Amino acid sequence: MSYFPNVAKIQYEGTKTKNPFAFRHYNPEEVVAGKTMKEHLRFAVAYWHTMTQDGSDPFGNPTNQRTWFGATEMETARNRVEAFFEILEKLGAEYFCFHDVDIAPEGDSLEEFYQNLDEITDLIKEHMDRTGIKLLWNTANMFSHPRYVNGAASTNNADVFAYAAAQVKKGLDISKKLGGENYVFWGGREGYETLLNTDMGFEQDNIARLFKMAIAYGEKIGHKPQFLLEPKPKEPSKHQYDFDAATTLQFIQKYGLEGDFKLNLEANHATLAGHTFEHEIEVARINHALGSLDANQGDVLLGWDTDEFPTNVYDVTLAMYGVLENGGIAPGGINFDSKVRRSSFEMEDLFLAHIAGMDTFARGLKAAAKLKEDRFFDDLKEKRYASFHEGIGEKIISDQEDLESLTEYALGLKDIKVESSHIEYVKSCLNDYLV
Amino acid sequence: MSYFPNVAKIQYEGTKTKNPFAFRHYNPEEVVAGKTMKEHLRFAVAYWHTMTQDGSDPFGNPTNQRTWFGATEMETARNRVEAFFEILEKLGAEYFCFHDVDIAPEGDSLEEFYQNLDEITDLIKEHMDRTGIKLLWNTANMFSHPRYVNGAASTNNADVFAYAAAQVKKGLDISKKLGGENYVFWGGREGYETLLNTDMGFEQDNIARLFKMAIAYGEKIGHKPQFLLEPKPKEPSKHQYDFDAATTLQFIQKYGLEGDFKLNLEANHATLAGHTFEHEIEVARINHALGSLDANQGDVLLGWDTDEFPTNVYDVTLAMYGVLENGGIAPGGINFDSKVRRSSFEMEDLFLAHIAGMDTFARGLKAAAKLKEDRFFDDLKEKRYASFHEGIGEKIISDQEDLESLTEYALGLKDIKVESSHIEYVKSCLNDYLV
Amino acid sequence: MSYFPNVAKIQYEGTKTKNPFAFRHYNPEEVVAGKTMKEHLRFAVAYWHTMTQDGSDPFGNPTNQRTWFGATEMETARNRVEAFFEILEKLGAEYFCFHDVDIAPEGDSLEEFYQNLDEITDLIKEHMDRTGIKLLWNTANMFSHPRYVNGAASTNNADVFAYAAAQVKKGLDISKKLGGENYVFWGGREGYETLLNTDMGFEQDNIARLFKMAIAYGEKIGHKPQFLLEPKPKEPSKHQYDFDAATTLQFIQKYGLEGDFKLNLEANHATLAGHTFEHEIEVARINHALGSLDANQGDVLLGWDTDEFPTNVYDVTLAMYGVLENGGIAPGGINFDSKVRRSSFEMEDLFLAHIAGMDTFARGLKAAAKLKEDRFFDDLKEKRYASFHEGIGEKIISDQEDLESLTEYALGLKDIKVESSHIEYVKSCLNDYLV
Amino acid sequence: MSYFPNVAKIQYEGTKTKNPFAFRHYNPEEVVAGKTMKEHLRFAVAYWHTMTQDGSDPFGNPTNQRTWFGATEMETARNRVEAFFEILEKLGAEYFCFHDVDIAPEGDSLEEFYQNLDEITDLIKEHMDRTGIKLLWNTANMFSHPRYVNGAASTNNADVFAYAAAQVKKGLDISKKLGGENYVFWGGREGYETLLNTDMGFEQDNIARLFKMAIAYGEKIGHKPQFLLEPKPKEPSKHQYDFDAATTLQFIQKYGLEGDFKLNLEANHATLAGHTFEHEIEVARINHALGSLDANQGDVLLGWDTDEFPTNVYDVTLAMYGVLENGGIAPGGINFDSKVRRSSFEMEDLFLAHIAGMDTFARGLKAAAKLKEDRFFDDLKEKRYASFHEGIGEKIISDQEDLESLTEYALGLKDIKVESSHIEYVKSCLNDYLV
Repeated sequence: MSYFPNVAKIQYEGTKTKNPFAFRHYNPEEVVAGKTMKEHLRFAVAYWHTMTQDGSDPFGNPTNQRTWFGATEMETARNRVEAFFEILEKLGAEYFCFHDVDIAPEGDSLEEFYQNLDEITDLIKEHMDRTGIKLLWNTANMFSHPRYVNGAASTNNADVFAYAAAQVKKGLDISKKLGGENYVFWGGREGYETLLNTDMGFEQDNIARLFKMAIAYGEKIGHKPQFLLEPKPKEPSKHQYDFDAATTLQFIQKYGLEGDFKLNLEANHATLAGHTFEHEIEVARINHALGSLDANQGDVLLGWDTDEFPTNVYDVTLAMYGVLENGGIAPGGINFDSKVRRSSFEMEDLFLAHIAGMDTFARGLKAAAKLKEDRFFDDLKEKRYASFHEGIGEKIISDQEDLESLTEYALGLKDIKVESSHIEYVKSCLNDYLV
Repeated sequence: MSYFPNVAKIQYEGTKTKNPFAFRHYNPEEVVAGKTMKEHLRFAVAYWHTMTQDGSDPFGNPTNQRTWFGATEMETARNRVEAFFEILEKLGAEYFCFHDVDIAPEGDSLEEFYQNLDEITDLIKEHMDRTGIKLLWNTANMFSHPRYVNGAASTNNADVFAYAAAQVKKGLDISKKLGGENYVFWGGREGYETLLNTDMGFEQDNIARLFKMAIAYGEKIGHKPQFLLEPKPKEPSKHQYDFDAATTLQFIQKYGLEGDFKLNLEANHATLAGHTFEHEIEVARINHALGSLDANQGDVLLGWDTDEFPTNVYDVTLAMYGVLENGGIAPGGINFDSKVRRSSFEMEDLFLAHIAGMDTFARGLKAAAKLKEDRFFDDLKEKRYASFHEGIGEKIISDQEDLESLTEYALGLKDIKVESSHIEYVKSCLNDYLV
Repeated sequence: MSYFPNVAKIQYEGTKTKNPFAFRHYNPEEVVAGKTMKEHLRFAVAYWHTMTQDGSDPFGNPTNQRTWFGATEMETARNRVEAFFEILEKLGAEYFCFHDVDIAPEGDSLEEFYQNLDEITDLIKEHMDRTGIKLLWNTANMFSHPRYVNGAASTNNADVFAYAAAQVKKGLDISKKLGGENYVFWGGREGYETLLNTDMGFEQDNIARLFKMAIAYGEKIGHKPQFLLEPKPKEPSKHQYDFDAATTLQFIQKYGLEGDFKLNLEANHATLAGHTFEHEIEVARINHALGSLDANQGDVLLGWDTDEFPTNVYDVTLAMYGVLENGGIAPGGINFDSKVRRSSFEMEDLFLAHIAGMDTFARGLKAAAKLKEDRFFDDLKEKRYASFHEGIGEKIISDQEDLESLTEYALGLKDIKVESSHIEYVKSCLNDYLV
Repeated sequence: MSYFPNVAKIQYEGTKTKNPFAFRHYNPEEVVAGKTMKEHLRFAVAYWHTMTQDGSDPFGNPTNQRTWFGATEMETARNRVEAFFEILEKLGAEYFCFHDVDIAPEGDSLEEFYQNLDEITDLIKEHMDRTGIKLLWNTANMFSHPRYVNGAASTNNADVFAYAAAQVKKGLDISKKLGGENYVFWGGREGYETLLNTDMGFEQDNIARLFKMAIAYGEKIGHKPQFLLEPKPKEPSKHQYDFDAATTLQFIQKYGLEGDFKLNLEANHATLAGHTFEHEIEVARINHALGSLDANQGDVLLGWDTDEFPTNVYDVTLAMYGVLENGGIAPGGINFDSKVRRSSFEMEDLFLAHIAGMDTFARGLKAAAKLKEDRFFDDLKEKRYASFHEGIGEKIISDQEDLESLTEYALGLKDIKVESSHIEYVKSCLNDYLV
């Protein structure tokens, strides 16, 4: 049985095609910069946006037309697994990601939730074995249920903390069972609605405490995925502690978690925090913490997370350039944390949207590879910072100078010649790569 | 000679007064929460906004009417010192702050700049000795001169780095000479105009390098002010590395500067970064890094630094509550990094504006002290987090639990009772304190 | 039967009370500026936030604990009417507002919806007759149902337009039946998700078309409520045509609707559009279009509609000052388009939150009345614009000058004396009124 | 004598060229959509950004290296004219724009200013006659001088109003002398710093008054340029009355100025107001008020006017599509209200930056023409709104329906079929046009 009988496996057909169900740019086996596009991009499909998102918004009811609803929640859950793997296979996406509540109903008790998860992950495992598709990462949803109204690890209620711990344990058990390569924490409620009643220091200590328990448990069961924190500044909370890459790194450093945690960066979260995606990637990269990417795009004129499928070639090219600079994104990947617009409510829009995103990343990868090959940025920066590779500059960066010696040097300077950056010309040239 | 012949020493006259040149709330010797208001508030006047700001903006010429201009730049500089101490004394402000370029002309060479600084700091020292007024902090302006177009410590030009080092050295010499209690770095150009030509990792390494040189030099000359970094997210740069408190702490931790550096936090910089002032204060406080405050306020509907004199009692009360929680702000202080509006261009507006700011802080201090005395927030939080002070909660925070034991506990939970925060009631009660 | 057995009628008890279920500032019969507070404020409770809001958010499930759910949707609907009037009576709010879908289930057909509405409005009418409570305004929800995914009056689908017209007709019938004083249009989907597929001119013509039909129908049935448009810039749409007060007035003027339409202004919508609430009120007032107010407050550091209960005394005072300047808000009122925070999920929080809002408006009213009485702003402005009340200024505003005569005058001017606004002093004085 | 001896006339060399001083996309005589690129684009160079902008910012001193400074202000002014026409000719730009203060020093009196303007405009006229280059628009700077601290037409000081009138009169005289095709009003100070001391209604009446005087004077002297208002939401003022296109149209309608005034729209002003550039263009277009364009781009993550040279092909393509829909932009043009970055301080950067902007617009024009030719948007919209071209839809838009007839129709509807917009696919296809 097929959920998408009218959609065949998506093929690369090039830019001339008029077939909406074809790649115009993504050619999985094409070699770019020494690796296949597939190896570079490690595309993952997100269970939540693809299978459980319903098209509702704060002012609107669900719009999405979905054919997988069954007589019971568990039947729906099983149907979704079938449909999901059909999507993955037809798209040629080799990875996927999910929250625990995406794949199985929570039931009436934690015990029942565990049982539901066991049954569904058995089914998922069958499909993984059959297809070779892999789990990029899983996570526990510790933000939707009312118990988490005041946070999970950062809750003011000790029972809630315990419940969260139980979800994380199960998440790690599932990660082991399915061979998850990463495990993500997104702290949608780890923050505050108002500072007036919040003990920020206490709450952050407790968050770190839960993370250390997770590390310890992973070691105990002999399964060590790459742990990832996902920064987001706000929404649903007024303030989230993992505001952006730098803030999250401050937390990681403070609590000595550098060895175990890296960052999962999302484009739309970057702009909500007032940064470009490439900025966040660079902050992570220079701190050896670039873990994985959540691919989407926001609308910078809107103040909430729109999670649109990425179609902006500028942004994606600079993101992929950062990935190339990083020597690749593995064991992370490019996960489409993107949802179809509320007005794209047909089943087949799920394909059209992923194709749009994958094609955009393919363009971005090719443009980034060409920029690298031509040493576009490399030459620019080498020339720009040249004064630090000789004379006083070289001595400064080899720590041979101090304030007094530099003062003496500065007093002897006749004139300092600063050079124009010609940045308008640079941007104009860059356009010829991107578009 | 007086620059403000019509302004007498500002006195506390209470809320009934119609005299604009009187305090209605700030009563320096009044004891609040065990200390005089003066001791709590440690008010400082900023040289730049008070003496050199001219009322221009990106679309407008100077408006400020000032009577201290002399025949030469040095004469003007000397006149300013006289006028500045007249303001400090009449306001009863016991501290002040300046950048090197605020007090003395840069001249045609570094040598000449040094000489000018020596002459003017001699004059300042005389006034300090005469009046007992103290230097809260000084700093070097390493962002206005064209040489700093691409940064100072983060410049791409080694000569510029050397020049910056020479300014810092002189700044520390001046700090020693004048007994400065703190020394501030604000990195207005330590960031980037565009990431396209920027080596962020290299630049941040160099910034840390300069800071370590400053620490070493301070030790060498036997003068160790509290070093302070001042976060600001952007403006003039598109991105500044010291984006906000958490980002700056990440930098401090990464480079091992915790022992020497704290934060100088500004209200308007907080809102530009998407935070409240009290948020930034709390982030600093729980990381033992609350150094000093730059008092002003922004317009949250505008995207640039307006540096208005603080008049919002809500914001200032919460800021002062943070200061009380911190056990005070010393050796930091409350520095008015505030400028008169362009339309408040008369000499005497300098007094009216500072009085407005000082009165607002006096209100904030008194409200905060009352909130503390009534245990308004203390009781609220004690009750809210009570579950962590007994049973499973106590065991969690004393690190006696792990994922497995908590899972077992969670499986046994019947129901989790979360309580309402009644936050609307809390805010309503808070209003009766503030106003 | 009572839904709030532990809550008695809310009484004014003054600021000393520790009773959370009492007014500390709102004293309904107290005379302020010649009218009772009740007459000035004309408080309305919003059906949607009070009765149907469930505490969910885009990342979270419902939290609100409500006791009015019955065995069927209609039973729930009837229960809600009972509970709602209990709230209105106990609060002493004399007005209320609703969308059609708030009060009655939509059923499986338009016909069934009509029947449900008839039954429930019968019940509401009984309560109105019994209590004397009045309908401030009603409206049709033309944004939540999937049929409105692309707009209602601005839809691309003619059937949807027809359906919207049918909802509006029923809304006006209900307005007549219940004696509604106003009728509101809020165009949450009258805008676009993307301009790429939007014919803006066509859509706006159709919106005007629907409004004219509404006017005509009102005339036909002999019921003419004040029609109100409610500006909001975005959310749920990427762009809404009624962006802000000025934009909405442009539409009203363009289509000749000035005689029939005024504005319903919301505080949080103002800030989302980049304006203060008082700005929007002033824009409406000077265009004779101030219709009614939706009372709430947003968080200016967040980019979405938070609809918090209003507690900021600054904002509310300036809003109420605008209302006084307008000679009152009738036939409009002060409608609490405010929702309890997700963490204030208990039934009784509905009271605590409304009390907080009503007390804040009471403070604002009293402060505004005092400002008026003292001619605080009147004197300020009279003095500030004095030059237009004599000499050349008087001739300019009586249209006796032209470019040539003014040029001649200007050529003869020796010096132009502009005066300082002393705005910092003004703000400081204003504080003594507000707080 | 040449100010740019190393720069020859800029030629089109195609995308293969490595010559920075060549067009890679702009080929002035190339015919696109029935007209030459030159005729479509009507490029103008802005005097202020090109000749008088100095590279300073609120935290930084001038950086721009310029060789036209002479011994006196008038000598500088004359040199600038020479340099400016050299730039215009070498770029092949056929239009230019200026403020009065850009071209001539204000001197010590209005009389002297007039004399200076006369002398310089004589010189400009010579160059215009020699080269055939035309004046797109001029304007009076009524925002920089301290007299305008509280506005020009909206000032509280009648003498200031008179002075502004004198500047406008001279502006129109110059427009006549130089054959200006448009005359612009940008109200940088026509707004408020604070609403607390502002009489908004009075001020807007006075603005309209000045505009009517300008219309009358134009008629009197027999010179009728297209008058243009330029929306901008804020900066330098906290709020500017011409907030955006719709707000400005509201003003135009209110005061009956539709016949004489259109809009001059700027990309960066659009984003500061929370809109895309294409949105503002569309609002103007459907109101028959698209006058002219100020070409630049902002940084949407920054809250101030950065006035960058336009290089984003997405934005420019959609802008040019709007221009094509409008049947062209004449008598308006594409004016580069763009400034070189502070770090692009060399003389020749003026060329590199304009070339970047002109090439981007050439790309945008070609892409827009292709979209038009392929009926990309036309087909999309025709299909999307098809239901209004038959049956009930046709009757609705021909005003044959009312609420009652539509209700009857709606009651008879079985099901409403709304179609997916497939917007992700649309965006993906659009990418293949842009790039």
